[in-house]
Formats: sequence, C-alpha cells, structure tokens
Amino acid sequence: MQSRSANADLNVAILGPLGTYTHEAAYKHFGSQATYVERETIKGVFEAISTGADVGVVPQENTIFGSVVETYDNLRETGFVCGEITLQVQHCLLVRTGVQLPEIRKVLSHEQALGQCRDFISTNLPTVSLMKTTSTAAAAQALLGNPPDRAAICSRVCATLFDGLSVLHEGIQNETANFTRFYIICKDQETTITPQVPRTPRSQALVRISPQLPSSTASSVVISPPSISRLLSALQINIIRIDRRPSLGGIPFHDTYLVELQEEPSVERDTESSWLAEVVKAVQRVEEAGGIAHLIGFW
Amino acid sequence: MQSRSANADLNVAILGPLGTYTHEAAYKHFGSQATYVERETIKGVFEAISTGADVGVVPQENTIFGSVVETYDNLRETGFVCGEITLQVQHCLLVRTGVQLPEIRKVLSHEQALGQCRDFISTNLPTVSLMKTTSTAAAAQALLGNPPDRAAICSRVCATLFDGLSVLHEGIQNETANFTRFYIICKDQETTITPQVPRTPRSQALVRISPQLPSSTASSVVISPPSISRLLSALQINIIRIDRRPSLGGIPFHDTYLVELQEEPSVERDTESSWLAEVVKAVQRVEEAGGIAHLIGFW
Repeated sequence: MQSRSANADLNVAILGPLGTYTHEAAYKHFGSQATYVERETIKGVFEAISTGADVGVVPQENTIFGSVVETYDNLRETGFVCGEITLQVQHCLLVRTGVQLPEIRKVLSHEQALGQCRDFISTNLPTVSLMKTTSTAAAAQALLGNPPDRAAICSRVCATLFDGLSVLHEGIQNETANFTRFYIICKDQETTITPQVPRTPRSQALVRISPQLPSSTASSVVISPPSISRLLSALQINIIRIDRRPSLGGIPFHDTYLVELQEEPSVERDTESSWLAEVVKAVQRVEEAGGIAHLIGFW
Repeated sequence: MQSRSANADLNVAILGPLGTYTHEAAYKHFGSQATYVERETIKGVFEAISTGADVGVVPQENTIFGSVVETYDNLRETGFVCGEITLQVQHCLLVRTGVQLPEIRKVLSHEQALGQCRDFISTNLPTVSLMKTTSTAAAAQALLGNPPDRAAICSRVCATLFDGLSVLHEGIQNETANFTRFYIICKDQETTITPQVPRTPRSQALVRISPQLPSSTASSVVISPPSISRLLSALQINIIRIDRRPSLGGIPFHDTYLVELQEEPSVERDTESSWLAEVVKAVQRVEEAGGIAHLIGFW
C-alpha cells in the first residue's frame, strides 16, 4: 500500500501501517509530493534506507512512554539522523464528507483511542455505540462502504488515504501533553545533502560514544562499566539527551551511549559549517580522552 | 507460595513467580534464612517495601536486553537502592534425586530455555523428546508425581523449592555472556542500616537528577530539553551508568536522569562515611548548578 502523488520525487520509508502517527509526522514534514512506503518494523525502515528509500521516519521518543529502544538499538550500527519531527498526538473525528455530528450513531477506533477520547464522546456523542477496530487507520477504512452514520477516531492523515472522508473535529483527546518525536534517518552523512529534503537551520547533532574495550576481557567475566564522566565532559557542547544501550560487542555491561547535542542558542556563527566543525572537533576530543566516538546525526 | 526457613528473620519481596532468576539472585544474596515473598510486578515489589517487607529485589538491567524500564520508572518517585546482585543466567538440568543422564527420556522447560540449551541437548540427550511448559519453575514442579524419566531446565533455586529434586548439570546454555543485574531496594536511606542485610563495602550511589522546571510552561507547549552538561559535570564523581526517563511532572521532554556513581578505586578513605559525605556534597553541587537532585541509592 503506497500513497503516491503525480509528482513523487522523494521516497519516504515509514514505520507502518499507513495512517498511523508516524505516517502523519512524515506527511507533515514532506508533504503530498512524496511517496510513502510502509515497513512493518523500525529495523525494516533502517533497511529501506540502505536499499533505495531516500529517507526514513522512525519514532524516537514519546513524552509519556519515553525512548523507543528499537530505534536506539538500530543506531548502534546503522543509519544517520538528518532531521527530527515532533508531533502532538491529536485524535480526529473522521466522517464521510458531509456528515454532521447529530447524524453519528457509531464511533469506531482502536480501544486505546476510544478511551483517550472518552470526555469528548460523553459530552458530544452521549448516545453513540462504540466499536473497537484493530487500528485507528482500520477505523477510517471501515467508514467506506458502510452507512454514513459512522465516525472514526484516527489521525488527520487518514483523510488523505481514503477518498470521501473529512475531518469533522480535531484534538478530541482528553490528554493534551502527548507528543511523539521522530528521527528522520538517511543512509549516511553524504546522502543528507539532497535538495529534496526540507531543512531547518542545523543546530543539533547525535554522537555515539562508548568506552574503549578492555584489552583482555573474556565475555564470561563480569566487569564494572568504566566511568564515562571524562568522555562526556570532553564533548564541551550542550548535551540535551543521553540514552544508554548494551554495546554490540558482547562484553557484559559495556555500554553504547547515544548523546544528542545542541548548539548554544546564544552563539552566532558565520556559517552552518562552523557548527559541523565544532561537532567534529568534539568527537575528536572524546577519542583523545580514550573513547570511541562517531558522529551519527547532524541536523 | 513462600519459601520459609525455621530461622526466617528477613522478609524479601521479589518479582515472581518463585523459582525464576530474580528469586535465584535474591537467594544467592540473602540465603536460606530469609523469607521470600513473590509479587506479580516490579511496582508490586516497590509497594511491598512500603508495607512491611524489609527489602525487595528487582531486575535493573540485562547484558543483552538493556535497562529494565519499569524499575527506573518506579525509582522516579519511590524506593532507595541499598545493594546490587549480578547473576549469570545459568540454566540447570534438574531431575528427581538419584536419576542419571541415560535414564532421561523427556526434557521439560519454557520454550526459550529449551532453545538456549539446544547444543547441550543434542550432544548429551540426542533422543529425548522436548515438552514446553509455561515457565522454567513449572517444569521443575512437573517432575514431581510423574515417572522419573523426566528432567527440567530451570534455575538452580528450583531445587530448593521442591523436595526430592537435584541439580544434575549446571550452565548448560549455549550463550555464556548473559548476565542480569538486580537492585536491592529498601524503603528509604534509614532502613538500609538494618544489620540483617549482608553488606559489601559501599562504593556506589544512585542519584536522581532533573533540570529545574521552566517557570511558566504550559504542558501543551513543546519545549526543547535544557542542557544537562552543567548538572553532570557538577557531580565531580565517576559516572558509570546514565538512564533517562520522562519526568512525572507532565512537562513534555522534561527528563529525569538516574545516574549511577562509583568511588574512584584508587581513593583510600578513612571511613565509609566519607564516601557518603562525598556523594551528599555532589548532590548539593548539582542543586547549586540549577538542578533538582536526590540521593536515591547508596551501597
């Protein structure tokens, strides 16, 4: 299933299915001109950017549930972050175009979304019956070929997936402080310089850091992790996020840190390239301090 | 279900069911004199130490799967870490006491454990049939009241749970670099000074750190997280682990960091209390640098 436009010039791999909030985030950023290709897993999105897709969009963290472990696990060995998208999870009430609130008798959605819109439903649609679907996108699809007295709770992007559907209300969830942040990933640093990708002024970077492997440690020997204080202070750049995952080397308690950096807001630089130079120098300083460091994101 | 001893003087709440590796870790540390009480969830173990249990044992991280999010989520508001236990996941072959390898016709265990012991089985028990059980402890239990030609793959502690069972082989898994590290938790810092708890020389600490809340931020406004570089360097103590979780305040992208500290191995101190004084000073420095910091572990 693909959402194509006549002028498709950018292939965007997303964590599927189409119609979910990852799709909506990608659509918000890349617009209707791009081609959206779904992958079943986050690993699948990382694989897609190695095999033809221009960019991928994967969830990085949610303000309630925290970091998305699978995204960080993939970043231990592959992919380059070339942007971010932050999306407020905004449930919409979709109907067949023209249908008004008093006509609605049934509301369809995923169980979780129905629960999150409890207040809106009891105030505005107190007599409707609720029907659970396997996903929010499936609820939108079920509006087609059925009597027009049905509404679906789903993301705004679903209205672009199926002809004849319209958004009747937006932001109908109880909880408003629910944001998901996504990483836009590319194959490597070179491929991020494609003119098709909309760019914001670059002031962030992602660095992968781990301590040097101990010279003679059998994998069955438990070691205490080395201090990372020296490696972090060697960066000398503002750290705004730190995530920790087991390293891929198989040494127990030997960690890989994914460290997100942000340019000091007060610093005025002549060119964007000086921020890149700053980050590259920071990576070198970490290596001089005894760490293994790689620049794996710049946006 | 409780494992009691005549001389039980310590109540240990563990993530259940009894017979799993959390139980084994607790048993390894607290021995047969303690009373082990199972809780269905990690949250349940934290609740138990507020309502009567002396200590709790919860998994903190595994060398393959990484940090245990639920443990860190609870530590955002409750509990005090007073110790740690590291356990190599060592599958054992349990039999009715006296049974030898050539007599075994059936091997019972959880599907995952059967898979992890594939090599041992094909070499030493090539003709047995495999039977899946709901847990490794259930496999041990199923040896009772059945013909003695059965063996179970499970943790060593299962031999203490059921009379008449013996460990025939230990460490029969393919993969050896699989360790799980557990936190021993107490109600608060005062309750850790109970003489019943075996103590190792204290040289570690856990500190919870978050940036000050912005003075006027509506929860629906997306903010970029503040830099934590200054807060981390204010510690001036070796950092060996950093974990990040969304804060409980409801401000989007406002994080809580759980930072594990370790005394410099080369430092020789007169008394253990000077390490505590050092950590308390570090917490004060973080607050002076504009952070919110709490000592939530010392062992």
